[in-house]
Amino acid sequence: MKELKEAILTRGKAVNQDVLLVDSFLNHQVDPTLMHDIGESFAAHFKPLGIDRVLTIESSGIAPAAFTAYTLGVPLVIMKKQMSRIMTGDLLQTTVRSFTKGTEYQLTVKRDFLPEKEQILFIDDFLASGEAAFGAIKLVEEAHSTLAGIGIVIEKSFQSGRKRLDDLHIPVLSLARIISMGPEGIEFLE
Amino acid sequence: MKELKEAILTRGKAVNQDVLLVDSFLNHQVDPTLMHDIGESFAAHFKPLGIDRVLTIESSGIAPAAFTAYTLGVPLVIMKKQMSRIMTGDLLQTTVRSFTKGTEYQLTVKRDFLPEKEQILFIDDFLASGEAAFGAIKLVEEAHSTLAGIGIVIEKSFQSGRKRLDDLHIPVLSLARIISMGPEGIEFLE
Repeated sequence: MKELKEAILTRGKAVNQDVLLVDSFLNHQVDPTLMHDIGESFAAHFKPLGIDRVLTIESSGIAPAAFTAYTLGVPLVIMKKQMSRIMTGDLLQTTVRSFTKGTEYQLTVKRDFLPEKEQILFIDDFLASGEAAFGAIKLVEEAHSTLAGIGIVIEKSFQSGRKRLDDLHIPVLSLARIISMGPEGIEFLE
Repeated sequence: MKELKEAILTRGKAVNQDVLLVDSFLNHQVDPTLMHDIGESFAAHFKPLGIDRVLTIESSGIAPAAFTAYTLGVPLVIMKKQMSRIMTGDLLQTTVRSFTKGTEYQLTVKRDFLPEKEQILFIDDFLASGEAAFGAIKLVEEAHSTLAGIGIVIEKSFQSGRKRLDDLHIPVLSLARIISMGPEGIEFLE
């Protein structure tokens, strides 16, 4: 996606070979027009799969996922990293390790909001080692639904996540695939 | 806002006189069409104030704030409750006590993303005692900008937040104002 790659090159910053700072347009300050266009791209690509529901993780996935769900005309479900005291009942849970924060966390979703026999589209801001995506896969399996597709804003193609998802034959669309990065620049996989 | 009040009455649940469960359309499962319409309502109301930027808190404010910012054509900035290891530099911070989670947390925003001399619109899902809104007011003050308006999806009008904001003469638009709630039903302030 051309506008996204331009945003990464002009407004992003490769802090080192692993960490890409995109907090000026994606996950702290957010460019809503870009998020809208990202949502339309995901929706157009995955619409033929008969998506029933969009699933994301709080909080950086919410903006692109909200525009995707709006364009598809289906509900959005946000997997929670933190429990609130009003979150009770029949819960689906799994453990995920965060690369960015260097921590482990529980992903939680109410079973009511992930009904069985649906086609689920998972949207997230980053794909690196794929831990978050595998958390989504596990919760969707527990719910007896199908993870029909995965839409990623920025893929670190030099990490293992994409290959692990391809091995499972899950359709993945990454709007920007970074093959290498560092102080000398950012290169995309075409 | 009619569609919102209908959603609260038909899809929400007053757990007791203080806690309203709206996780079926607002903060866990999200109705993106409703969020879009909420965003358009906030944008139409506050546009005359010359809003430069929309500010919200992760994570339940993000969906309505993203549609608001998209419609206004201005950036969205998400105040963070959790620090990540890539969040460094000149930071604005304040402490907020959460009613729902019964905890205290730090609100953090990079100073770069809250420049001085702007008109800021703060959007959040709930207004109860107003702690989150007062956290936003404090960060915007520290940034030497102006909190021009506050857009709230659901106001618990029987709590102190609205009065405290009115006392500061900050324009507040709450799309649903609940005057009382409980097992016997939910009543709105017209």
